[in-house]
Amino acid sequence: MIDQSIKRKIDHLSVPSRLKDAMQYSFKAGGKRLRPILLIASYEAYGNDISKVMSTAIALEMIHTYSLIHDDLPAMDDDDLRRGQPTNHKVFDEATAILAGDALLTYSFECIAEDSILTNEEKVKLMKWLSRASGPKGMVAGQILDLQAENKAVTIKELEEIHTLKTGELIQFAVIAGAYLGQATEEQLEHLKRFSHYLGLIFQIQDDILDVTGDQYKIGKPIGSDELNEKSTYPRILGLEGAINQKNAYVTKAKEALAKAEVRESRLLSLTEYLTQRDY
Amino acid sequence: MIDQSIKRKIDHLSVPSRLKDAMQYSFKAGGKRLRPILLIASYEAYGNDISKVMSTAIALEMIHTYSLIHDDLPAMDDDDLRRGQPTNHKVFDEATAILAGDALLTYSFECIAEDSILTNEEKVKLMKWLSRASGPKGMVAGQILDLQAENKAVTIKELEEIHTLKTGELIQFAVIAGAYLGQATEEQLEHLKRFSHYLGLIFQIQDDILDVTGDQYKIGKPIGSDELNEKSTYPRILGLEGAINQKNAYVTKAKEALAKAEVRESRLLSLTEYLTQRDY
Repeated sequence: MIDQSIKRKIDHLSVPSRLKDAMQYSFKAGGKRLRPILLIASYEAYGNDISKVMSTAIALEMIHTYSLIHDDLPAMDDDDLRRGQPTNHKVFDEATAILAGDALLTYSFECIAEDSILTNEEKVKLMKWLSRASGPKGMVAGQILDLQAENKAVTIKELEEIHTLKTGELIQFAVIAGAYLGQATEEQLEHLKRFSHYLGLIFQIQDDILDVTGDQYKIGKPIGSDELNEKSTYPRILGLEGAINQKNAYVTKAKEALAKAEVRESRLLSLTEYLTQRDY
Repeated sequence: MIDQSIKRKIDHLSVPSRLKDAMQYSFKAGGKRLRPILLIASYEAYGNDISKVMSTAIALEMIHTYSLIHDDLPAMDDDDLRRGQPTNHKVFDEATAILAGDALLTYSFECIAEDSILTNEEKVKLMKWLSRASGPKGMVAGQILDLQAENKAVTIKELEEIHTLKTGELIQFAVIAGAYLGQATEEQLEHLKRFSHYLGLIFQIQDDILDVTGDQYKIGKPIGSDELNEKSTYPRILGLEGAINQKNAYVTKAKEALAKAEVRESRLLSLTEYLTQRDY
């Protein structure tokens, strides 16, 4: 459903075909759609008709996807493959990939601004939160800290700050935006903030663990690339067993916070289990 | 006033210093501030207290500046100098310049969303218009068409489509957003749409003319670089005299539309004169 909505949203744009192709490409090339799924699950824990959140879910995935396109550029992580497919700048070229990323980022705000169901108050709140989570105080800050940390020994505290900014903020946005649109109370939102903070860390630890123990065909990139690139990861700092223990400690905390948030059904819980156990 | 507001807005961000420095740099390196000045002038043609438009004016200049940073990248226009100063990626590095651009683009929406004076209805309208003008249907489309037009003969019609998208849309946003916030009527806005369309074209023709007849110390880059790069320009397609005639024809049309818009005083008119005659 998310994939179809994104495709339609970009298809109906009347823009130069090369730009449209580059914008579509990185969605066609796969992805778990974790953030929009989390947003919808969080909404469903309180609200009813999910057409209320579709624009926001799509906008969020567009922002995530733009960040991957720019991250993969030669000047950044210089990755030729993502999810086993050639990266955007390999299929098109660097200039087009930069512009496709810029286009997706900008268009994500238009998707929310022009939605026909959300109120103006909701739109303003969502765009404020989304720009904070993805901008210089959020994801972009995480990205620059990540680049600065390359080939340097970092502490667990520094590592967690990078992850919280780089991936945690958008995961938190997903959970909070969904619950807010579902009319969760202030108190419930506070519990969900803690829940989503831990969820982001769980996601990242599992990513690091998979780089050691995973199946390269499932995760779509060679095993051990973090080690090879001397990247700071949980297993490198804490050892594999230490990383698994840390993850389990966060799972406990996440579940505690989730219980207090009085969610109506268990999809957020099963997503937590999935993120803990996922093998790709 | 605009410079100070932008500086404050970025200074107070609690973000990694390298990111902040890169975000500030391209403002310190100069610029005419044409778009925020136009926005304020357009507001003052109808409204009173300009604190109403400052966030939008700043957001607009941030988007313009991000586009210059990305345009100058090696993968795009590969420019080492802008306004006589080293470009962002020359002072920092490509990765930082990409991220500084992403950060400015994202932060511009936050600036509008968190403004304390604008109503929610105004914020949503502004963000919708701004994302349209700068996104895949606007500025980014113009940029990709511009890249595709390199080393190719284009017609005046194609050239004007590129300019309308690449620079015209943001100039139009400046004029329309200012007048809208000043409570201009729908009819006045329609006349201002035509006015700003011609103003954008005047701006671009003058840019092209300056590349032939200008003073390189004033414009901050070598004369004749368009010719050297085989760029399609008005003087190349129409001849220098033809380009000047075309500009004057648009000036007449712009002034006609402006007269019908019943602006209260003449700053938009004097800005039109300035853009027609400017020597840098």
